[in-house]
Amino acid sequence: MSESGETVAVFGPGLMGGSLLMALRQRHPHIRRHVWGRRTEALEELQRRNLADFSSTDAAAVAAGAGVVVLCVPVDRMAAVAGEAAPGVQAGCLVTDVGSVKEGVVAELEGIFAAHGNFVGSHPMCGSEAAGLDAARGDLYDNATCVVTPTERSRPEQVRRAVALWESVGGRAVTMSPGDHDLGAALASHVPHVAAAALVELLQSGPEAARQLCASGFRDTTRIAGGPVSVWEPILLQNRHAVAQGLADLADILRSVGADLEDNNAAKLARFLESARAGRQAVMTPDP
Amino acid sequence: MSESGETVAVFGPGLMGGSLLMALRQRHPHIRRHVWGRRTEALEELQRRNLADFSSTDAAAVAAGAGVVVLCVPVDRMAAVAGEAAPGVQAGCLVTDVGSVKEGVVAELEGIFAAHGNFVGSHPMCGSEAAGLDAARGDLYDNATCVVTPTERSRPEQVRRAVALWESVGGRAVTMSPGDHDLGAALASHVPHVAAAALVELLQSGPEAARQLCASGFRDTTRIAGGPVSVWEPILLQNRHAVAQGLADLADILRSVGADLEDNNAAKLARFLESARAGRQAVMTPDP
Repeated sequence: MSESGETVAVFGPGLMGGSLLMALRQRHPHIRRHVWGRRTEALEELQRRNLADFSSTDAAAVAAGAGVVVLCVPVDRMAAVAGEAAPGVQAGCLVTDVGSVKEGVVAELEGIFAAHGNFVGSHPMCGSEAAGLDAARGDLYDNATCVVTPTERSRPEQVRRAVALWESVGGRAVTMSPGDHDLGAALASHVPHVAAAALVELLQSGPEAARQLCASGFRDTTRIAGGPVSVWEPILLQNRHAVAQGLADLADILRSVGADLEDNNAAKLARFLESARAGRQAVMTPDP
Repeated sequence: MSESGETVAVFGPGLMGGSLLMALRQRHPHIRRHVWGRRTEALEELQRRNLADFSSTDAAAVAAGAGVVVLCVPVDRMAAVAGEAAPGVQAGCLVTDVGSVKEGVVAELEGIFAAHGNFVGSHPMCGSEAAGLDAARGDLYDNATCVVTPTERSRPEQVRRAVALWESVGGRAVTMSPGDHDLGAALASHVPHVAAAALVELLQSGPEAARQLCASGFRDTTRIAGGPVSVWEPILLQNRHAVAQGLADLADILRSVGADLEDNNAAKLARFLESARAGRQAVMTPDP
C-alpha cells in the first residue's frame, strides 16, 4: 500500500467505505482514491469533503486503472455491484470486500472475478450500530480484527496484499477459511445480534415497569440491536443455517439455567456465572 | 438531606455504599457519615480516604444517632446485617437498602424494622460489572433511575424521605411496588444478565475461530456477564420465578427467529429486527 501512483477503488461510501477512504487519505495521501456510489448526491458529498479523486456511478469506470478494488456494499448487493465493476477491473488487480458473511459471497465473487483481477474475501470486524458516511471515521480500522478468507482458488500473493491492505489502515489481519469465518461469526456476532433484538422484544412484551427500569446494562447488552435492518437482514439470511443452530443452542442454555433457577440450585448457577465471567475475560483480553 | 447535623449511616462500603459516601461528601459535606463494614481493613481504608466520620464493625453502634440508614450489602446478606443494626436504629430513622431484588428483601426488612425506625426499600439502577470500593465514584448516582418501593405498611413521610435521599445524590426517583419492580427488573436486568452469560457459554462451546472474531459488539453485549458472581447469584435466585419465566419466553423468541431464518423468511426477519430497533430507541431515549 505504499507504492506511489497506486489507485484504490472503493465501492459504496457508507460507514465501512467512507472510513476506508478517510484512513487512506490520512495514512497514504499519495494513493489515488476512486469511489463508486449509487447516488450522485453521495458522490458530490465525497467531492466536497475531498475524499475522492474520482467518483462516478459507472462501476466499470471507477474500477478502471485501480490496483485494489474494495467492495463495501451490503452482502445482498455484493454480486450485482461486482458484476457491474468486473469489466473495468484490470489484470492483477486485487478485488476484496468487507461483507460480514463470507461463504456465499466468496463463492459468487470468485466466479465473477475469475476472468477479471483476483478476488480474496475480507471482513473487517469494526461495524457499528451507526451507518452511512456521517458515521464514518478515519480510525475505524485501528486495531480492528480484519479477517481475510482465502480459498484454494486464491493466489498467495493476492492474499498477502489483502492482509497488507488492512494492516495499512491500522487493522490486525487474521486469515481463515470462509466456512470457519461464518461459523465463528455466527457465535461472535450474528447470534448476539439476534439475542440483543430478542431482549428488546421481550421487554416490549412486558409491563411498563420493565421499560422504566432499563439502565446502562440493558443499554449495552442491546446496543447492536440498534443497527440498520438493511444491513443485518441479509447478513443473518446469508448465514442462516449457522445462526439458527446457534440460536437453538442458546435457547437450550437459557432453558437449562431457568431449570436450575426453579430448582434453587445455587451451586450450578454459580458455576455457570463464574464460567461465563472467566470466559469473557479470556476472550476480551487475549494474549498478545 | 440538607438539614445540618444529620447523620447518614452506610452499611457496606462497596461499589454502591462507597459511591454514596463520595456523593454525600461532595454534595452535602455537613452531613455526618457513619459506616459499617465487616472487615477492619476496609474501614481503615475509608478513614484514610476521609470518607467516614465514624466507622465500626459494630452495626448497632454505627446505626445509633443516624437519621438515615442505607443497607448496601448483597441481597443474601441484607437480613443478617439488618438484624445486627436494628437495636441501634432510633425511632423515626429512615432505613432503606440498595438491593436489586425487592419483594423478599422488603418483606423481611419491614419485619425486622417494625419496632425500629421505618423501612422503605430502594433500588438505584446504577450497578456496574466492577465491584468494591475501588470501583466507587461520586457521580455513580447522577441521572440514575432510583426505584423506591413502598408498600401499604410504608409511612408516606418516609417514602418522601427515601425519594429525597436519592435525588440529593443526583438520581431520578421513581416509585413502584416491590412486585412490579421485580417483574420489571427480571426483563430489564436479570434476564439480560443471564443472556449475556449464555452468549459467552455458547462462544466457549464453539470453535477457536469464534473467539478470534469477538469484537466491540460481543464486548458490549456481554459486558454485564463480567459482573461479580457473589452479587448476581443471590439476585437471580431471589427473583428466580420471574427470571425463569423471562428466560423461557426469551428462548421461545430465539427459536421462533431461528425457524424464520431456516424458512428464509426475509419479511418476518425484517419486521422482527425493525421492531427491536425502534423499541430500543424508544426505551433508551424516553420523553423527558
